[in-house]
Amino acid sequence: MRTSFAVGVDVGGTRIAAGLVERKGRMVKELRALTPKEAGPFAIVDTIIDLIEEAYEGTHPSEIAGIGVGLPAQIDFLKQSVEFCTNLPLSGIDVRSLIMSRVRHPVAIDNDGNCAGIGESRFGAAKKTRDFVMITLGTGVGGALILNGEPYRGSRGLGAEIGHMVIRLDGPPCPCGGRGHIESFLGRPAIAAKGREAARGHRGLAIREQAGGEPERVTAEDVVNAALKGDECAREILLEAGAILGEALVGIVNLLNPRLIVVGGGIGESCAFLVERAAEVIDAGALAGRRDVKVVQAQLGNDAGVLGAAALAFDEHDSREGLHR
Amino acid sequence: MRTSFAVGVDVGGTRIAAGLVERKGRMVKELRALTPKEAGPFAIVDTIIDLIEEAYEGTHPSEIAGIGVGLPAQIDFLKQSVEFCTNLPLSGIDVRSLIMSRVRHPVAIDNDGNCAGIGESRFGAAKKTRDFVMITLGTGVGGALILNGEPYRGSRGLGAEIGHMVIRLDGPPCPCGGRGHIESFLGRPAIAAKGREAARGHRGLAIREQAGGEPERVTAEDVVNAALKGDECAREILLEAGAILGEALVGIVNLLNPRLIVVGGGIGESCAFLVERAAEVIDAGALAGRRDVKVVQAQLGNDAGVLGAAALAFDEHDSREGLHR
Repeated sequence: MRTSFAVGVDVGGTRIAAGLVERKGRMVKELRALTPKEAGPFAIVDTIIDLIEEAYEGTHPSEIAGIGVGLPAQIDFLKQSVEFCTNLPLSGIDVRSLIMSRVRHPVAIDNDGNCAGIGESRFGAAKKTRDFVMITLGTGVGGALILNGEPYRGSRGLGAEIGHMVIRLDGPPCPCGGRGHIESFLGRPAIAAKGREAARGHRGLAIREQAGGEPERVTAEDVVNAALKGDECAREILLEAGAILGEALVGIVNLLNPRLIVVGGGIGESCAFLVERAAEVIDAGALAGRRDVKVVQAQLGNDAGVLGAAALAFDEHDSREGLHR
Repeated sequence: MRTSFAVGVDVGGTRIAAGLVERKGRMVKELRALTPKEAGPFAIVDTIIDLIEEAYEGTHPSEIAGIGVGLPAQIDFLKQSVEFCTNLPLSGIDVRSLIMSRVRHPVAIDNDGNCAGIGESRFGAAKKTRDFVMITLGTGVGGALILNGEPYRGSRGLGAEIGHMVIRLDGPPCPCGGRGHIESFLGRPAIAAKGREAARGHRGLAIREQAGGEPERVTAEDVVNAALKGDECAREILLEAGAILGEALVGIVNLLNPRLIVVGGGIGESCAFLVERAAEVIDAGALAGRRDVKVVQAQLGNDAGVLGAAALAFDEHDSREGLHR
């Protein structure tokens, strides 16, 4: 039977979003909650379950294909387990079983970057591209490699942790414990730190104002907002981030020779000029023959993760039922 | 018809090797020549052709499946063209047609890293592994991604230029024109430069002796030889290289979650302790769940490229003839 809806959930370091999604990618209901990060793993799982129940409330159970949940974590996709989670206390927590014990539908979990990649590949910026790289700039830096139309998850299914590639030997510490990773330059905390530094001095006045005059309260969003209002200092911080993103992507272009790169996540989606700077750096620095790679912003905004998670739920349902896309 | 032999050629920055190879990977004849680097592209192609002719001399034409040639270049595998070559003057030269105009067998060209990867995957260190990363430390740093048993070559077939991933933003210049690439730390010129620096001072006495007492003549091999004779200073240079290799591989492990990494090339094959250092760094630094990746030295030594190129020639022959492996 062809079910009509799936529920997609996108768990972020700051917010959890859920949606009731039709097969063709239309989101008919959308819900959000803050991630109760400090309240521990079970509070987070409870929030996820509440959102799922709200999302499918009012539909008949037979209309629901299943639930897909994207987590900011390394997922062993084959075992459906959370192996490691940097930004939330979910390492080793059996999120899938906990959800399934309360909701009456099959649940599939995946890495949030993979979900965003599936979303953009099915419904967004990469709709006609079977091979592309997705990178998401948010609290963490994630991403996905979509090869032959499917996420490439590696030998244990742990996925493409693009944010944890080394781009500066002995560089600044990364939340994962490593040093000089992409995430340690481009995650929200890194951009916020640059913003705070600037806000303490003369040039960062506009950034400071975004944070109510308190330099220590500056967030990455304050920097983005100041830049979008035309502040040069904030713009410089984000252009520098764009150049670093470009250098990181030079390495990925040289390794994988992709046709398309999709930049998503909150920071990537709000800053076209940051993505353009990255494209310039790739154009100048990638090996010859690879520079025709297109670098675009994600199209689905915050919805990519929810839509991709829902697509995953449809896929899992269809493969259980022996249906094919 | 099942032919008995293929000719494999491995073109390096310093030497060209060719071999007459049986289907099961036994090399029945082996030939070498210096690469006439300074004499221009046609001298290089002539040397390749001479070696090929010597290799199949004495066999009947019907016994030869074809010729495979690995080049230290970015190859558009679909077009069979040399797009870009850092260490030899072969960019844009139609190497394949030039060879085919003189030898009477089909010719296939590929990136030398891919050939080494195919060689190790068919006959060497990766024989039972369908998904692995090969990295070759030679004059250049190359490599291959073998996914599902086949080299992953990307959207234009330009292959996996592992040596040109950025590992230090604004780092030292790379022969390709970039900065801070893996090759700019681990290629022979980079190791030789470290050796020369040491040889000028007190601690580098043993390295200087390897170069006949002349610091400016120190090569990467002099550093390796001094280290293998127990010199601490040379060993430190190569252990540092091993640590840098490890950091670079942390990024690749986090991106691709491979089961196996094979380290080849002249430097990689002669220095077990360098490869062990890299493995330690990966074990300490890769994201949890990925640290069980095995890091091993290539098994085929200098023969990997020749054997892989020959395997490629057999594969191309068999697919022309409609045969399957």
